[in-house]
Amino acid sequence: MGEPVKFLLPEEEIPTAWVNLLADLPGAPPPPLNPGTGEPAGREDLAAIFPMGLIEQEVSSEPEIEIPDEVREIYRLWRPTPLHRARRLEQDLDTPAHIYYKYEGVSPAGSHKPNTAVAQAFYNREAGIRKLATETGAGQWGSALALACGLFGLECEVFMVGISYDQKPYRKAMIETWGATVHRSPSELTEAGRSQAEHTSGSLGIAISEAVEVAAGAGDTNYSLGSVLNHVCLHQTVIGQECIKQMELAVEAPDVVVGCVGGGSNFAGIAYPFLRARLRHGVETRFLAAEPAACPTLTRGRYAYDFGDTVGMTPLMPMYTLGHDFVPPPVHAGGLRYHGDAPSLCALVKEGLVEAKAIAQTAAFEAAVRFARTEGIIPGPEPAHAIRAVLDEAEAAKEAGEERVILFNLSGHGHFDMSAYEAYFAGELEDLEMPEEELEAALARLPEAPALP
Amino acid sequence: MGEPVKFLLPEEEIPTAWVNLLADLPGAPPPPLNPGTGEPAGREDLAAIFPMGLIEQEVSSEPEIEIPDEVREIYRLWRPTPLHRARRLEQDLDTPAHIYYKYEGVSPAGSHKPNTAVAQAFYNREAGIRKLATETGAGQWGSALALACGLFGLECEVFMVGISYDQKPYRKAMIETWGATVHRSPSELTEAGRSQAEHTSGSLGIAISEAVEVAAGAGDTNYSLGSVLNHVCLHQTVIGQECIKQMELAVEAPDVVVGCVGGGSNFAGIAYPFLRARLRHGVETRFLAAEPAACPTLTRGRYAYDFGDTVGMTPLMPMYTLGHDFVPPPVHAGGLRYHGDAPSLCALVKEGLVEAKAIAQTAAFEAAVRFARTEGIIPGPEPAHAIRAVLDEAEAAKEAGEERVILFNLSGHGHFDMSAYEAYFAGELEDLEMPEEELEAALARLPEAPALP
Repeated sequence: MGEPVKFLLPEEEIPTAWVNLLADLPGAPPPPLNPGTGEPAGREDLAAIFPMGLIEQEVSSEPEIEIPDEVREIYRLWRPTPLHRARRLEQDLDTPAHIYYKYEGVSPAGSHKPNTAVAQAFYNREAGIRKLATETGAGQWGSALALACGLFGLECEVFMVGISYDQKPYRKAMIETWGATVHRSPSELTEAGRSQAEHTSGSLGIAISEAVEVAAGAGDTNYSLGSVLNHVCLHQTVIGQECIKQMELAVEAPDVVVGCVGGGSNFAGIAYPFLRARLRHGVETRFLAAEPAACPTLTRGRYAYDFGDTVGMTPLMPMYTLGHDFVPPPVHAGGLRYHGDAPSLCALVKEGLVEAKAIAQTAAFEAAVRFARTEGIIPGPEPAHAIRAVLDEAEAAKEAGEERVILFNLSGHGHFDMSAYEAYFAGELEDLEMPEEELEAALARLPEAPALP
Repeated sequence: MGEPVKFLLPEEEIPTAWVNLLADLPGAPPPPLNPGTGEPAGREDLAAIFPMGLIEQEVSSEPEIEIPDEVREIYRLWRPTPLHRARRLEQDLDTPAHIYYKYEGVSPAGSHKPNTAVAQAFYNREAGIRKLATETGAGQWGSALALACGLFGLECEVFMVGISYDQKPYRKAMIETWGATVHRSPSELTEAGRSQAEHTSGSLGIAISEAVEVAAGAGDTNYSLGSVLNHVCLHQTVIGQECIKQMELAVEAPDVVVGCVGGGSNFAGIAYPFLRARLRHGVETRFLAAEPAACPTLTRGRYAYDFGDTVGMTPLMPMYTLGHDFVPPPVHAGGLRYHGDAPSLCALVKEGLVEAKAIAQTAAFEAAVRFARTEGIIPGPEPAHAIRAVLDEAEAAKEAGEERVILFNLSGHGHFDMSAYEAYFAGELEDLEMPEEELEAALARLPEAPALP
């Protein structure tokens, strides 16, 4: 046989700490603000819906946060995940580039999301919480939290974006298999849902408002978010830490690290450990965030304070935003349809440490099919955007005659998104445009807040 | 952290040869017969639809058959597959039993089927064949062959059992993603399909007839079968061979090996390498085949010569059968709805070397949900039958106070079968009975052939 195509680690190599990149960022990032007072949001602003264990991580300046044994025990069910060298794809592309992918689709829920879901369920259970409420778009996050709550004996209530609820009934069945409850959002169960009833297909922002309302209204219930926040991004850094060890096994180092971006957590997961090496030791690595052209937060949004949800219940966060009530066109990558992005990632883009690129939907699926036909795995629509960016990098490497080493996060499989592939093969997939007028209008509705530097 | 829960092997440990158990069976098994002449079927009876490389394996008396490098290269995309110790399930059951499962769902197609699909595509391409035709029930086999044909540059045409085609549209999209074509069976494209048009929901036997007809009618097209035949069963023995090494890593040996049975190949895959050890060295291991109560071939079928397909195009095979035109009730484990079983497995059951047990559908799903809520992975409806048998073994071990070591084949995930879970949670899943009168009638239509010993 030839050179290995998979680089595996034993269970002992599951990281023992999460990487908190905030501690290494040059200059303190702008703080989130209490929308009522305009003052920096403190622990007490979050305590109604998050347990103190997670709040401490949200505001921590420690560079590393120890992973509790109970969380690592659960990680062992599927971690460490494999790192693959995509030799068959490289041959098909006839590129001198070396392409590596970290495959997070081996988790029971099929994506990277359980990495933080398990941690969040753990800290909530430790705090005596009985139930978690959350939203889900395409269903990856709802599945992951349902799995995690099931494993820790918590109840779980999921508000699923209406259009996904209708199009992806099997995600609902999956969530129920792990013992959780699913509601179509907007629902009749919350004030927020009733107030948005005219948006029948729903949005991630509306579903967040519903889940936050449920959590804020019950003492034994908390809210759980699958991306954007700092504690979520840092939980995902088990991905990149494993990659660093696995790239050592491959005796290579990435020239460029690629991930798709919806809220930023899978990108942060693979990139932040490598970014820390760049910030601390000057390791020359490029970082490339691939976002959907239909929801181009990093490439065309405004860097400003905005709400994380549609109704305006969360603190104001410093980020690139398309406006908290902007409803992105219904692309199939439901997990990327978010108006904002993780503040930490936005700061890195602002600083020029991370490049961002907008990818059209059909180009993403074309890349995903090419990947499936060479490497076997059928990618989710979200990482399909990363794969498109990787193919472009490999083509650039070929033109430059460079042995460029490309590492990307294959954050999940597409088993629950096959209707999108069906539409692609039927020629029914459109390159949905972001409506410029709607964007302008949404940006005009940004909350009053200090300007960001 | 505690004791490991996963036992991994590096790529170099992918087996270099397949185990051909026929060479070790006590006494020569009865030969398949040419249905026209009643004489033992020879190589020439198979040459119209199979390449000589596979025919040689079908009739080989060599105990081991070398795996070609090109096949091992493809296996490396996902093999060796992990062996898990189900510690969380054991705790939940409060059993002294040690439960291990081999997880074949990590293949891109989500089951063990690619192990043989890749081999079959390879030998056909070597023989200059341009296209493969096949049938698929639930879709696992059609997906696997589509993947394999795509990787070896062959065309692939899949006849999918009508009811599955309607109920599992995403399997169709998956097959198309790998570049193959799917037809609903019975179709208008073949004589066999047209003759069975009144059976609108189709059956595996009818779909086999259609694919065989396509293959027999074109010189550059061959037929490919996903189970039953000896060459298929032996390709699957990579599973059991890896398990032997992994159980050594766990410093245990199985007291009982469990698998579900539709045609017999996933059971053969995990069991035959351990069975060889029993036959050669007297290792005391029990073997337990779990079949659906609605299609109870091994437990209630007749041991007789019968056709492999519905229309009667294949050689007569010595096996337990419910009658070649028996249409099993529409249980959700589509992959187990076959009227016969692998002749090699039937001979082992006849000899008492393998025990068989019929499992009711709801009991299987109850076990699968318990598994999903403890181990995370959502099992396919087929291995759910094996899990039910494992839970019963674990309960028996508890009653006996025994540290029984149970190993089973988790042959695939249930991501494309979530409608079955939905039906289970809605209380709509029935324990479909095999209609006794229909069975009697089907057995009365068995072809004329010598009686089996």
